[in-house]
Amino acid sequence: MRLSEIARRLECELRGGDAEISRVMGIEKAGPGDLTFIANRKYVHYLKTTRASAVILGLEVSDVKIPSLRTANPYLAFARAIEFFYRPPAPSPGIDPTAVIHSTSRIGANASIGAHVVVQQETEVGNDVTLYPNCTLYPHVRIGDGCMLHSNVVVREYVQIGKRCVIQNGAVIGGDGFGFAPVGDGTYHKIVQSGTVVLEDDVEVGANSTIDRAAVGETRIRCGAKIDNLVQIGHGSDVGENTVLAAQVGIAGSTVVGKNVMLGGQVGAAGHLRIGDRVVATAQTGIPNSVEEGKIVSGYPAIDNIDWRKASAVFPTLPQMQKRIRELEKLVAELRRKSSEP
Amino acid sequence: MRLSEIARRLECELRGGDAEISRVMGIEKAGPGDLTFIANRKYVHYLKTTRASAVILGLEVSDVKIPSLRTANPYLAFARAIEFFYRPPAPSPGIDPTAVIHSTSRIGANASIGAHVVVQQETEVGNDVTLYPNCTLYPHVRIGDGCMLHSNVVVREYVQIGKRCVIQNGAVIGGDGFGFAPVGDGTYHKIVQSGTVVLEDDVEVGANSTIDRAAVGETRIRCGAKIDNLVQIGHGSDVGENTVLAAQVGIAGSTVVGKNVMLGGQVGAAGHLRIGDRVVATAQTGIPNSVEEGKIVSGYPAIDNIDWRKASAVFPTLPQMQKRIRELEKLVAELRRKSSEP
Amino acid sequence: MRLSEIARRLECELRGGDAEISRVMGIEKAGPGDLTFIANRKYVHYLKTTRASAVILGLEVSDVKIPSLRTANPYLAFARAIEFFYRPPAPSPGIDPTAVIHSTSRIGANASIGAHVVVQQETEVGNDVTLYPNCTLYPHVRIGDGCMLHSNVVVREYVQIGKRCVIQNGAVIGGDGFGFAPVGDGTYHKIVQSGTVVLEDDVEVGANSTIDRAAVGETRIRCGAKIDNLVQIGHGSDVGENTVLAAQVGIAGSTVVGKNVMLGGQVGAAGHLRIGDRVVATAQTGIPNSVEEGKIVSGYPAIDNIDWRKASAVFPTLPQMQKRIRELEKLVAELRRKSSEP
Repeated sequence: MRLSEIARRLECELRGGDAEISRVMGIEKAGPGDLTFIANRKYVHYLKTTRASAVILGLEVSDVKIPSLRTANPYLAFARAIEFFYRPPAPSPGIDPTAVIHSTSRIGANASIGAHVVVQQETEVGNDVTLYPNCTLYPHVRIGDGCMLHSNVVVREYVQIGKRCVIQNGAVIGGDGFGFAPVGDGTYHKIVQSGTVVLEDDVEVGANSTIDRAAVGETRIRCGAKIDNLVQIGHGSDVGENTVLAAQVGIAGSTVVGKNVMLGGQVGAAGHLRIGDRVVATAQTGIPNSVEEGKIVSGYPAIDNIDWRKASAVFPTLPQMQKRIRELEKLVAELRRKSSEP
Repeated sequence: MRLSEIARRLECELRGGDAEISRVMGIEKAGPGDLTFIANRKYVHYLKTTRASAVILGLEVSDVKIPSLRTANPYLAFARAIEFFYRPPAPSPGIDPTAVIHSTSRIGANASIGAHVVVQQETEVGNDVTLYPNCTLYPHVRIGDGCMLHSNVVVREYVQIGKRCVIQNGAVIGGDGFGFAPVGDGTYHKIVQSGTVVLEDDVEVGANSTIDRAAVGETRIRCGAKIDNLVQIGHGSDVGENTVLAAQVGIAGSTVVGKNVMLGGQVGAAGHLRIGDRVVATAQTGIPNSVEEGKIVSGYPAIDNIDWRKASAVFPTLPQMQKRIRELEKLVAELRRKSSEP
Repeated sequence: MRLSEIARRLECELRGGDAEISRVMGIEKAGPGDLTFIANRKYVHYLKTTRASAVILGLEVSDVKIPSLRTANPYLAFARAIEFFYRPPAPSPGIDPTAVIHSTSRIGANASIGAHVVVQQETEVGNDVTLYPNCTLYPHVRIGDGCMLHSNVVVREYVQIGKRCVIQNGAVIGGDGFGFAPVGDGTYHKIVQSGTVVLEDDVEVGANSTIDRAAVGETRIRCGAKIDNLVQIGHGSDVGENTVLAAQVGIAGSTVVGKNVMLGGQVGAAGHLRIGDRVVATAQTGIPNSVEEGKIVSGYPAIDNIDWRKASAVFPTLPQMQKRIRELEKLVAELRRKSSEP
């Protein structure tokens, strides 16, 4: 595809000459015929040495020696450019003969139901849904139009999934919440998890992530939330619109996470909290208390990110600080002795 | 169901009038016809505004405006009340024709074996066992009476599972322990994991958790232990009776965890340790050394919880402490100069 | 098997008498007929009380009362000794009739393809490969000779796996990387993950681990790397030869991890970093910046391990330090008052 054609389709300004493009590639590995991009400052220095035929750049970056497509949002332009050159293999149309679909369940038009899929009773699968091989839908499930469930996904009883959700392989939606009431003799009584899980529209759930059903009521993941791999969402929690949870995040039960929140990898949040809209927690943060909207927090227990960074910078000097205090104590004792001398 | 009938069955004292109850619901969302409960002080203030028809309360809570069921253990009463109103869909009885069961294996009475289940050779499945679709049992496995294995559970060769265990979706019981002997040239020799895993009675394992088989001997999870989602148990470890491991806990190999221990979310414990009975570790704690019974620990490396809380409270002030020390050093130097003046 | 025969095969020196050995067992549980081993100093004291018939020891350990096999690498000798006494059940030969294999795909000689396996189009499975039940291979996959994929493993489109790799149950190789471009209105545009994953030869991947496909280019796991359970590898990352990643490690996207690196359990590394050859990070370390080769790092943010240990030892005394500073300030203020007196 001609670079000028890509510029037209992405509504980017083309600077420098035209070129024939056959692929999108990262700047470190790009070669002739590749369109590359810069969306992270760390990579700007590669502009001097890249062998790419063209590059997608922000409007503010100064002139470069290769043709460039200029846009206010280079990362989005990169994302859309990929789609001109690559499409994942299309799933096989129709229902595989080895799929086991209960007679009381309904599969929508244009669905692709893979080999060994199991759909139990009273379940409704919308139009244009893809269920990859070995998916299991328990009874009374609803899957909205245009969803894609990758192989080995499990959707438990009564779970409702909205439109255009993408569930990566092995994710478990609606497993039992972790609820056990102490009986008093050291043993526990399992609390039947009578609630369910609701995924609203345009949610993505990563591979092998687990979103637990509620004891009562529901666990809800709101429109446009994006959840990475190996994430745990406890029962009764509520994840806000367009919130992003990086890999291995854990959210305990009954916690309400606001809109447009970003939790970094391995962040943990305790139960029964409120995490306000637009909160950012950097990787590995531990959140034991509610967080006000718009805050950036770090550390465990989580504190303001700036405070945490300053304190963390001092932390390695603790042994010297201790020594300096000891030295001061000695000097002060000496001064006091002297000053009390006649 | 009448509230008075619920009171009778749960052996609770009924205070206030009777009511018709159709559901159990959390206090924030409960409405007319709902029975709600308070088991966590954070929610007491909702008693003023709840629209629930009745509430389960501890004996010590003062009078409330709606009818209440009084008991010494409101959380247990709540758990049991749910069972009056909700039961998960019953698994289909019998063996699904698409299940592949080896001729040398035995399935007990009243079992429910779902679609596409695979049971390999020399395996024994007890009475009243449910294997949901797409479960795989490797050879020489034993599953005790009354177990429920949710879809996509894998039980590896020689693993023994006791009675009434519940294994949530995607859990892997008996995967190879992570054992590699350095050969000396930088590469590793895989250590055949010749041991196995034993789950005693009444164990629960969460979704996508992994419990590794031992290199030699066994990995053992004792009676009544409850393990949440995405937990890793290393090879040769031993988890004590009624111990509770929250989501994303990781226990390295050959560690012995005592009875009635509680490890919070994302806690990690190193290998070859002894964690005493009734130890509590708060979320994200890292445990590099053995812990005496009854201790409450936090932080990384784990220290006494009270000490950790106090030190954590001071941590954000480190930059000021550093500044104060510098200031003191200046003042003391000045004083010393003066005092040495003639 | 006679101990002398084991000594001969392992090329160990036999000290003490001969014995009949039927099993390899850990020193705490070993009894008559068992061969045990010491590869960790913590267990040396068990030599006084063990009931084992013989023990594998380093050359430097002093004489013991039971027969011993002496070698410079006792852990490797132990690993090899297990293989004399235990072999996992052999997978059934041939292709199970319930497996669904696309007509355009090719299965090599001596393969074992389990029940309900799904192999989609244009995929090549090498010789001597075992696919356990319920594995799913997406289109255009390559699996090298001698690989073993345990049940419920998923290999996504275009992924290439080298020779002799072992993939434990439920691992997902090639799930979509977590890439979303902000559109500007708070929502995200999913970035098609057009790249793939390459596993080189002799790689092991643990149960329920997830290795994401790249947005462009590839995610690569190099020869001999060993990855434990529940590990997350972000898109576009590169894990070096013979590197060892313990359970629940998370590596964000586009990070390059060198050779012979060891990351302890629950370690997290941010994206776009370079972690040099032979780096060691102790458990739970958080790595926000690149690390030079050969360093040992700990803590979050990661610092030199020795510095971290010293600072961590002082951390619990922070409240006392604060108090001592306050006391000093008082004393110094008093001294200054006195010294300014006429």
